[in-house]
Amino acid sequence: MRHLLGVRGLDRDDLVHLLDLTASFRAVNARPIPKVPALQGRTVATLFFEDSTRTRLSFETAAKRLSADTLSFSVGTSSVKKGESLRDTARTVEAMGVDAIVLRHSASGAPHRLAGWVDAAVVNAGDGWHEHPTQALLDAFTLRERFGTLDGLRVAIVGDIAHSRVARSNVWALHTLGAEVTLVAPRTLLPPDTSAWPVRVTDDLDDVLRTVDVVYLLRMQFERQGAPLVPSLAEYVERFGLTRERAERLGPSTVVMHPGPMNQGVEIAPEVADDPRCLVLDQVANGVSVRMAVLFRLLGAGPLQNAGGGGDV
Amino acid sequence: MRHLLGVRGLDRDDLVHLLDLTASFRAVNARPIPKVPALQGRTVATLFFEDSTRTRLSFETAAKRLSADTLSFSVGTSSVKKGESLRDTARTVEAMGVDAIVLRHSASGAPHRLAGWVDAAVVNAGDGWHEHPTQALLDAFTLRERFGTLDGLRVAIVGDIAHSRVARSNVWALHTLGAEVTLVAPRTLLPPDTSAWPVRVTDDLDDVLRTVDVVYLLRMQFERQGAPLVPSLAEYVERFGLTRERAERLGPSTVVMHPGPMNQGVEIAPEVADDPRCLVLDQVANGVSVRMAVLFRLLGAGPLQNAGGGGDV
Amino acid sequence: MRHLLGVRGLDRDDLVHLLDLTASFRAVNARPIPKVPALQGRTVATLFFEDSTRTRLSFETAAKRLSADTLSFSVGTSSVKKGESLRDTARTVEAMGVDAIVLRHSASGAPHRLAGWVDAAVVNAGDGWHEHPTQALLDAFTLRERFGTLDGLRVAIVGDIAHSRVARSNVWALHTLGAEVTLVAPRTLLPPDTSAWPVRVTDDLDDVLRTVDVVYLLRMQFERQGAPLVPSLAEYVERFGLTRERAERLGPSTVVMHPGPMNQGVEIAPEVADDPRCLVLDQVANGVSVRMAVLFRLLGAGPLQNAGGGGDV
Repeated sequence: MRHLLGVRGLDRDDLVHLLDLTASFRAVNARPIPKVPALQGRTVATLFFEDSTRTRLSFETAAKRLSADTLSFSVGTSSVKKGESLRDTARTVEAMGVDAIVLRHSASGAPHRLAGWVDAAVVNAGDGWHEHPTQALLDAFTLRERFGTLDGLRVAIVGDIAHSRVARSNVWALHTLGAEVTLVAPRTLLPPDTSAWPVRVTDDLDDVLRTVDVVYLLRMQFERQGAPLVPSLAEYVERFGLTRERAERLGPSTVVMHPGPMNQGVEIAPEVADDPRCLVLDQVANGVSVRMAVLFRLLGAGPLQNAGGGGDV
Repeated sequence: MRHLLGVRGLDRDDLVHLLDLTASFRAVNARPIPKVPALQGRTVATLFFEDSTRTRLSFETAAKRLSADTLSFSVGTSSVKKGESLRDTARTVEAMGVDAIVLRHSASGAPHRLAGWVDAAVVNAGDGWHEHPTQALLDAFTLRERFGTLDGLRVAIVGDIAHSRVARSNVWALHTLGAEVTLVAPRTLLPPDTSAWPVRVTDDLDDVLRTVDVVYLLRMQFERQGAPLVPSLAEYVERFGLTRERAERLGPSTVVMHPGPMNQGVEIAPEVADDPRCLVLDQVANGVSVRMAVLFRLLGAGPLQNAGGGGDV
Repeated sequence: MRHLLGVRGLDRDDLVHLLDLTASFRAVNARPIPKVPALQGRTVATLFFEDSTRTRLSFETAAKRLSADTLSFSVGTSSVKKGESLRDTARTVEAMGVDAIVLRHSASGAPHRLAGWVDAAVVNAGDGWHEHPTQALLDAFTLRERFGTLDGLRVAIVGDIAHSRVARSNVWALHTLGAEVTLVAPRTLLPPDTSAWPVRVTDDLDDVLRTVDVVYLLRMQFERQGAPLVPSLAEYVERFGLTRERAERLGPSTVVMHPGPMNQGVEIAPEVADDPRCLVLDQVANGVSVRMAVLFRLLGAGPLQNAGGGGDV
């Protein structure tokens, strides 16, 4: 495993190995000094062509807890504004002595192209509407923690599937780990063709809610849509929002997830966001552990017991 | 002491303890390697909803000298732009493993609300026109260093009191530590009612200058005022600016202070800013020590002798 | 040597000493853990009044590999927007405990003025059209690595000489180290008077290419020019671009350099940028080593063998 470009290419063993590694780093993060010297002397660069402070900080926190150095390259201040290509930017960053590049880019496939241009390990931190693999890994880890296994787990992914890399990565991770995935969305928010996806599709949220273990709500990304794809916000909330009323009908062990940031009052009611069954903050916390696991898998030289052997920096 | 939300809630002992702790860290900062391992493994996040590079860097420098890690969240690049609430942003940051949140926000009271939402320690780095407690602490420390005590010290705070959190925090800190505070401003730059403040109020700067030990000049924050509150800049300078002529009439031991950044030529003449009696750079330098004291007080587990026992990181 | 303000004031011994020091740090950078404790406890501030993520990150990487702490001050978020002067900003940064200030500024001579205002060491990271000394040093180091010596080396600098600090610094460094420099540009892109420069000037690139060892291409800085200084882009490329056709006529040991970021298709053809004779990525990599050498020279206390004695942070 040289890069993490997407979930789709990973088999069950790959995923289970990464989740097991995540569990080790979760234990590191529970220590008084949550650091290991595993990646001392290594440098991880974040190269973000789209704003996402939370994802970038999660990766940088993960790198620092592994004792790696970090370089932060964001489009707003980089020479990309001067017309430099992704390839030149990435090769320049690499030449400064970078071992891994964490890339967020608006173009689907950008990380794959990057992987052909550099020797550094490439981690896809979200590319267009394509994939967001560490999000799917942290979601899978959060569910495995809660339910013990994903085998047979019934998961509904609700909302704007068409424009969601989170949905795509989750579909493949959840399916590979044995879960049954149902997509819930109006036709306008579905991709043109989902026949090759291992999912069931419906537009009846209320019907689905009665039988699911997990309601995974997507962010309504108004900023990504050109023409409006739903007749009105009120109508969207009425048919696809997890309102208080709907949440009351969920089973007692059913959980609610969201990749954040939430539009409270749109896809999720404020009371639901605060319900203990809503795992949003667990997802964020596990994000750091998952990213430590990914960086360690790509850059770590030896076994974890050595890496994590001391609590000293 | 779980949070530092304002000066107003602190009694004399609290303040003296923080100033004594600041003196210890000032000694650390004079070492060849100005670092202690006191907060190793802890993470301090700066969450700035208003620009202030100097305050943010001062806090981050303080955190690093205590061997803490830092996360920097600024509104320009965060998902706040996507409509996320302060509460969601702060809880997300906390979930990444943050022990203290340093908050700058344009809304008065924002840090108090934040303290109710998170388990992390909250430090107010300026909220609206309300408080800026670490500024008042560093000012008090600077004065205690210069004069030995604040008891009986006569301090004039000059300028735009109405829009100044620095003035409010300083009034309470100075009063609690025994100083006599006079506010000097035109009526338009005073709050509607100062009857509950332990201060004298006047609009005659020249009268006050003859008897004070400290002239504390506030920045004319043109960017915070809606309608103009002074007839003209020239008139303001004439009546309230610390011009070279006025500075010549100050007593030899009288000092001049300013929270920065200075509008040279407005509230302070360039020659006065460069006068050795102007303590602006001492204030900046002491700011790092004060913020080390505050972070150590909120996050440090043991006594300082242990924390500062080694110079090694 | 207290500051590095420009190349013009340095003699051959100064330059050779810095290049030798660079070679030592290049060896450090080849280690598994490319760090030395040389500047532990020191703080290096980058103060950039013009965007240049790549130069800033190169300096910050250099500082971190010397175990120094870094503070990053960029104009976009600093109180400079509030009208603070360079002098006040720099003195404020210094008061926070900064040992060196790396300055990028649009005004020629800004670093020289700064050096008169602060006790910290000042490094010029580019001032107006004047100098960019670390760029010239890394270029000289790259050439010395490739050719063994610069004595007698024939270097053509091609493009917008008038607006290029890179050209100015390189002219002096190359000349001092024994190279023969030819400037190649249309009259509109030459300074008004180059009679005091130790160079030959021509506007015939094809004539020059037959005899040079090094083709150093400058970036066409469209963003720095007011009125257009070349009739058309196509004409510029035809007369001054290093096209694939021209590159084929270069000698086998001739190398191509560029300070980056490249305008591929303008001053350099994409195929030429990817040719192994193009040293752009070597330049970037050597930039970190050169900046380590400069910071160590200005801030390091003892001999390098002590500084580099351990690989531990």
